[in-house]
Amino acid sequence: MQDAAANTDAVICECFCRDGLQHETIMLPAEVKIDLVDRFSALGFQRIEATSYSNPAVIPQFGDASEVLAGIERLQDVHYKATCPNPRAVQRALADLQAGRGATEISMLVSASESHSQRNLKRSRADQWENVREMAELAAGRFRLVGTISVAFGCPFEQAVDAGRVIEDAIRFRKYGVQYITLGDTTGMATPHTVRSLFRALRTELPDANLIAHFHDSRGTALANCVAALEADVRYFDAAIGGVGGHPAKVQYGGGYTGNACTEDLVDLFEAMGVRTGIDLPALLETGRHCETVLERKLAGHVTHTGANPLRPL
Amino acid sequence: MQDAAANTDAVICECFCRDGLQHETIMLPAEVKIDLVDRFSALGFQRIEATSYSNPAVIPQFGDASEVLAGIERLQDVHYKATCPNPRAVQRALADLQAGRGATEISMLVSASESHSQRNLKRSRADQWENVREMAELAAGRFRLVGTISVAFGCPFEQAVDAGRVIEDAIRFRKYGVQYITLGDTTGMATPHTVRSLFRALRTELPDANLIAHFHDSRGTALANCVAALEADVRYFDAAIGGVGGHPAKVQYGGGYTGNACTEDLVDLFEAMGVRTGIDLPALLETGRHCETVLERKLAGHVTHTGANPLRPL
Repeated sequence: MQDAAANTDAVICECFCRDGLQHETIMLPAEVKIDLVDRFSALGFQRIEATSYSNPAVIPQFGDASEVLAGIERLQDVHYKATCPNPRAVQRALADLQAGRGATEISMLVSASESHSQRNLKRSRADQWENVREMAELAAGRFRLVGTISVAFGCPFEQAVDAGRVIEDAIRFRKYGVQYITLGDTTGMATPHTVRSLFRALRTELPDANLIAHFHDSRGTALANCVAALEADVRYFDAAIGGVGGHPAKVQYGGGYTGNACTEDLVDLFEAMGVRTGIDLPALLETGRHCETVLERKLAGHVTHTGANPLRPL
Repeated sequence: MQDAAANTDAVICECFCRDGLQHETIMLPAEVKIDLVDRFSALGFQRIEATSYSNPAVIPQFGDASEVLAGIERLQDVHYKATCPNPRAVQRALADLQAGRGATEISMLVSASESHSQRNLKRSRADQWENVREMAELAAGRFRLVGTISVAFGCPFEQAVDAGRVIEDAIRFRKYGVQYITLGDTTGMATPHTVRSLFRALRTELPDANLIAHFHDSRGTALANCVAALEADVRYFDAAIGGVGGHPAKVQYGGGYTGNACTEDLVDLFEAMGVRTGIDLPALLETGRHCETVLERKLAGHVTHTGANPLRPL
């Protein structure tokens, strides 16, 4: 069912360069991003979210998407993901792929709530699904496809989100050929209970899909929710070094505390639990400190400064 | 078995004024501490760690222990705890009690490892147990007694700690009349697995003791570990507003990231899980911001700034 390398129990996707940077005010030059992606692959990450084919007029940070993907050193068994908001983005991804320098994985997004879809994607859910259908058709057979369902555990505008709708969305992604399905806790509203219950329901419904847990630490719950997802048999996790990401200035998205699950804290916890991540933890901590230099501030990672937990299960 | 008020599922002890302040460089005046303890009791905390009868020459922050305890407004059903490092401290606690202005609960400490005992308590484990025996004798029938076992899940100097020894320590506390037994994860080495396994073993061994979970967030794991403890039927938790506490400057104690589990994040998570804490969460968030003013810096609480999770279980 899972395609993770045999020697890992959990596959963590390093999202620093996309979800992490999306709302950063510092514009990183392409060569810095290329160096970061190469550092991440050297650390043992099997999946790296490298960039986004967003419209550069809307998100200037990713205006260099093609340049970044062309510049990285490709390691075998590593998937390089690019986010695609629309068919035009998939066409750019296909052109780069054609030229032998593309992403190997693309992700597409829907919101589980109408209000979040309107505000975040500037489109109704129906329109975005039409978009996704077209994107999946263009991308079929060329990329590994990831479908992400935002605000799956709760919406900052509508509060509760119907679990049945999230499951329908996941089924629809699957129908469009999407093999990897991400449940996103966009503003940190999930709890271990809702995480276990929704992932278990989804596993029952789609036994052949690879489920990905994507938590934000808006309320300090990301690690607790990752543990709950692991207990619900999830093996794919999204995280960002230093817990970067989120909407730093927007109160409605969580008031500045909506970073991703912090990679180094997650890897340290999983390894201390005997859950093998395949990541070189001491080198990861060095990279965590490097990322603080790159972003010119202290980030949210704990073990970056505390050091790895010396305990391993017997 | 538990004496928590009938309308709460989890009893959180607010440790800001003792474990939280112990290593703070800012010396808070007694009136500020009195005001804080009064705010905490008004928020609904049933247990408040108010001060420590440490030797003021060693820990000047608590030189005002008697003054603080004399100044607070006592609410019925609230227990005010003072830490006692030695029999001299218990004698001071008894004198204050005699004068009608004492703590109602005192806590005594042992380290599960010899090295941590030597470095933290400046005594061997054997000597500290002799101390505890004497303290428990002095305090018997006068205070609610709490016995805390430090580094119960791992020691920064010796790494692994034998679970059997922790259980023996707990049994010994019980033998000395201690009703509340705390397992302390002093430098953040516990994981949800070790938390569940040790608390379950202890519950089996001491079915009539009240078990308290005391986690530090050195590696970002405090909330995940609180959830694990809850699942192991623990109903008492220690936490500090803003996640303050720990040994800020000492690398061997976790390099500056060893604060307590953050109260506001814990209360928010528990309430979102349907675990009733009896705490007024909106007022707690205000108090969290007040504590930032008091300590003149941004603290580690997430929900203080993000706002409470609007979701509650159906």
